Amino acid sequence: MTVQALTDVRELAQQLRVDSIRCSTSAGSGHPTSSMSAADLMAVLLARHLRYDWRNPRDPANDHLIFSKGHASPLLYSMFKAAGVISDPELMTGYRRYESVLEGHPTPVLPWVDVATGSLGQGLPDGVGVALAGRYLDELPFRVWVLCGDSEMAEGSMWEAFDKASYYRLSNLTAIVDVNRLGQRGPTELGWDIDTYVRRVEGFGCQAIPIDGHDLGEIDKALSRAAEADRPTVILARTRKGRGFDEVEDREGWHGRPLPPEMAERAILELGGDRHVRVSGPTPEEVSPRVRPDEEVVLPRYEPGAKVATRKAFGEALAAVGARGNVVALDGEVGNSTHTEDFEKAHPERYFEIYICEQQLIGAAVGMSVRGYIPFAATFAAFFTRAYDFVRMSAISRANIRLCGSHAGVEIGADGPSQMGLEDLAMMRAVNGSTVLYPSDATSAAFLVREMADREGVVYMRTTRGAYPVLYGPDETFPVGGSKVVRSSRRDQVTLIGAGVTLHNCLAAADQLAADGIAARVLDLYSVQPIDTRALVKAAAATGDRLVVVEDHYPAGGIGEAVLEALNEAGHPARVAHLAVRGLPGSGTPAELMDGAGISAGHVARAARELVAA
Amino acid sequence: MTVQALTDVRELAQQLRVDSIRCSTSAGSGHPTSSMSAADLMAVLLARHLRYDWRNPRDPANDHLIFSKGHASPLLYSMFKAAGVISDPELMTGYRRYESVLEGHPTPVLPWVDVATGSLGQGLPDGVGVALAGRYLDELPFRVWVLCGDSEMAEGSMWEAFDKASYYRLSNLTAIVDVNRLGQRGPTELGWDIDTYVRRVEGFGCQAIPIDGHDLGEIDKALSRAAEADRPTVILARTRKGRGFDEVEDREGWHGRPLPPEMAERAILELGGDRHVRVSGPTPEEVSPRVRPDEEVVLPRYEPGAKVATRKAFGEALAAVGARGNVVALDGEVGNSTHTEDFEKAHPERYFEIYICEQQLIGAAVGMSVRGYIPFAATFAAFFTRAYDFVRMSAISRANIRLCGSHAGVEIGADGPSQMGLEDLAMMRAVNGSTVLYPSDATSAAFLVREMADREGVVYMRTTRGAYPVLYGPDETFPVGGSKVVRSSRRDQVTLIGAGVTLHNCLAAADQLAADGIAARVLDLYSVQPIDTRALVKAAAATGDRLVVVEDHYPAGGIGEAVLEALNEAGHPARVAHLAVRGLPGSGTPAELMDGAGISAGHVARAARELVAA
Repeated sequence: MTVQALTDVRELAQQLRVDSIRCSTSAGSGHPTSSMSAADLMAVLLARHLRYDWRNPRDPANDHLIFSKGHASPLLYSMFKAAGVISDPELMTGYRRYESVLEGHPTPVLPWVDVATGSLGQGLPDGVGVALAGRYLDELPFRVWVLCGDSEMAEGSMWEAFDKASYYRLSNLTAIVDVNRLGQRGPTELGWDIDTYVRRVEGFGCQAIPIDGHDLGEIDKALSRAAEADRPTVILARTRKGRGFDEVEDREGWHGRPLPPEMAERAILELGGDRHVRVSGPTPEEVSPRVRPDEEVVLPRYEPGAKVATRKAFGEALAAVGARGNVVALDGEVGNSTHTEDFEKAHPERYFEIYICEQQLIGAAVGMSVRGYIPFAATFAAFFTRAYDFVRMSAISRANIRLCGSHAGVEIGADGPSQMGLEDLAMMRAVNGSTVLYPSDATSAAFLVREMADREGVVYMRTTRGAYPVLYGPDETFPVGGSKVVRSSRRDQVTLIGAGVTLHNCLAAADQLAADGIAARVLDLYSVQPIDTRALVKAAAATGDRLVVVEDHYPAGGIGEAVLEALNEAGHPARVAHLAVRGLPGSGTPAELMDGAGISAGHVARAARELVAA
Repeated sequence: MTVQALTDVRELAQQLRVDSIRCSTSAGSGHPTSSMSAADLMAVLLARHLRYDWRNPRDPANDHLIFSKGHASPLLYSMFKAAGVISDPELMTGYRRYESVLEGHPTPVLPWVDVATGSLGQGLPDGVGVALAGRYLDELPFRVWVLCGDSEMAEGSMWEAFDKASYYRLSNLTAIVDVNRLGQRGPTELGWDIDTYVRRVEGFGCQAIPIDGHDLGEIDKALSRAAEADRPTVILARTRKGRGFDEVEDREGWHGRPLPPEMAERAILELGGDRHVRVSGPTPEEVSPRVRPDEEVVLPRYEPGAKVATRKAFGEALAAVGARGNVVALDGEVGNSTHTEDFEKAHPERYFEIYICEQQLIGAAVGMSVRGYIPFAATFAAFFTRAYDFVRMSAISRANIRLCGSHAGVEIGADGPSQMGLEDLAMMRAVNGSTVLYPSDATSAAFLVREMADREGVVYMRTTRGAYPVLYGPDETFPVGGSKVVRSSRRDQVTLIGAGVTLHNCLAAADQLAADGIAARVLDLYSVQPIDTRALVKAAAATGDRLVVVEDHYPAGGIGEAVLEALNEAGHPARVAHLAVRGLPGSGTPAELMDGAGISAGHVARAARELVAA
């Protein structure tokens, strides 16, 4: 059958409960009770509303199903079994096991999973991104269904998501909130106060549908109404945790605990035994996805010597890279600072203003990455700290997102420390598989923006507020993982290593040193990760193992430590004078603040002199 | 006069505008128009409602005033001038200047400023913390007034704050939202749609009072109503950005721009000229602050060899440290995992359940720190990434907060990567002035919890999920900045450096190496920052400069780079084999995952053998 009758759905729901218990008991860990509360909701969705071709998870017309409450993975995997895409032995011997794709929380190692969840309050913002793509980019009728927990309604990111969903009129998005009233350590804040949830959700501009989450008819009607709405829908389903097994149903102390084997047996008996239910729900209609043609990317060209801020070059290059039809840009209401406004002017239909909510900014980018777009998201470097959990999770989601953080370091001047990105390199370097770029001039910034488009994983570029001289001719290339020797001679005694604004300080320092008769090599470390170990070793060897590394960043986790790590890995230790921002800065001019932090040209020259004299 | 008549307040408001213009024009940067929209609101507050003894900012009975829209610093500093605590020359020559206390965004270098703001959406969550302290700890009648911007209403953290404010019935908290409808680059999401703001705020359980933010009588009534309410109040004030100077009022393109001098002159003329208004508002009644007596702290004692998880020891020690009356604990609804539940049981009146909203968790801790309490906030190490911007800003706030992140690394096992703290050391080390602790056993964990209580700044402890043998006798001491040589001999050939679970892997590796006839020194690096450079150098020198560092963390910014940085600073480079988690883990047992990541005892032994053989 292609659509199951509601009477059949009850059998499916019970089987989902049985399998959730079986697999978690078998694994000795997992969340059966959080799965059982949502089993009726998901059974109706799977059998009658989720339009999905299980044989072809890459069908662009497929609906999307996201478990924002990722700990209910037993339920999700039981659904996959019911849909026939994983087998019972796979479920029973794979769940939560080493090297299995059936991880404790879902990740896209499974082809039917769009994004990794498990850090609460992220699946819905990711779903907003998928729905944005559906409505504004693909222009396809797929729907996005997100199963949410009630505990995660305390996360602000959920309200960022509801807000953006209504602002962008995402009628293709439905959140199904499993209000089982019990969190990890006891009752949730609002318990079963569905009325309050309804008021909040409606205040945020979404259609709220309160239902009994165990009444299959009510669920079915709500899902139908969601599909017909002209705005996002939030189904607030009153449910009971552990539903179906009296010994645990609606009882505290059973969060995240598998049932002991003998208890599991009793539960399965009470649930009517282990059935063999196979579901075949609706499939999507055939569609022709919209293809946005690629035009030639013509990067902006900059005259060496002209003063251009790297943030400005980022914006201009992004607008140019927008010639490719699947490039999109998003910003956190600072597009005139980050210069994504240049992209907005050139490609308004592919620009998304996310306003000041950096978590949803990343969530939207991740969702667009799910749909195959090439998202660039930008805000101040400092404000990406707001979304670090989202960036971290996007690596687990295997999302391909490009981030640009402007206003790096004390160089920004008078605005003061709240606006200075001084931890961003440490934060981004620690993200699994990440790329971290930090260009010093407009030419390299523009080149690297184009490189970012085709790079996988989390790719971060750091840009500078102020305008500094263009260093490179327009035909120079800047491969990721490379570096540039900007100045050198055969008799160099020391290497000065900088990136971004500090490269300019290194060049000025080299001038000062030259006046003292000290020849200094200058290395532009525009690719902080991957790092150009070979060039570092070569420079160290050529200059008596004397290196000065200078960065507009706190010392931990930044360029200095990256250099030390690279030299260590290469088995080539060198004496590194590490200049970084070590105190808490205040306001002032860029020159005052860089000098006060000990990263100005004068400090670089002094450190070099000391190395040479030692 | 002690309370100004409303007719006088108009003069005050105009002077605040004039001074906001004057100081920002003089500095050549700043946000005069965002100050002018809120000038009437703040003039009424300052003159008639804010009970504050300006001669004694440390008076515990003082109200608190927080500018969540920190960019309106010209307005705040102009209020300070009107209150007589800064002079006109200070304002005019200090604002945004190098080494001045009048920074671009307010910080507590000024005694009348509680917390640093400038990253939007943080002042209100911080204010919730201050109000929590007032209502539940101090039990004093002070009020907390928070000036918010409308742009920051898009930040989820604001809704975390409204939610917690109503949950805890913080009738002592008033948010005043300056709805001037214009953000940085254009109109805000909701513009002047005050009705929607009202619905949202009421949905979140607060009293909403919509007013005309330029009608002094309406403002006055609203502030009076706020003081009488039985729940938190949110005043939604419709205002005009740049109010009072027609050339910029309610016009786009004037965000964050000082008026050019000749324009400033016209503006001051239009505002009625430069007055000399001095305000003397209400002062607080004298109160006797509640003193919670200290009792003796008796730390738990653990038997060497017994298996105890460091997270368990953290909880037990925290309960013990709670004998000190000003220690408080907060948790993100995982207290049975982090073990703050032990504190809750012992001191329920000083335990605060913040539920799953890590940003508000930190904001609450910061607010309690403002009131002189010693807050410990805990959640999974992974989930502190959710609040990195708050942690970063708390360092700028000079807040003294203690954080404990449990469930570090792949050691957690089956739950998978979303729950594994693998970036937390990098993140926390990069916070200005931070302390980072990572005990390996219950005895050291307990000792360090007590050390944390008296330590300033951001102090982070990382704990492990699993139970491992107690290594130290109960009378051992563990000073911050120290380390322990756990095993050594005169003929050690290599040093194995670990912390947390990896120290146990180092000990097991040392056993394996001993069987091969290789003597290995083992160093417990429980203090990751500050780091025990002397001990590292000593161990390196004693073992032929052969070091193995092993950490359950991604390689960037963690223990390995901390060791390299320390050795480099000491001028003592060594060959460090750096074992860290380099790929994306999945599920499995702790042993499988540590082995798969290359950080198990076998890998440590192999790395040591290679160093010795080289």
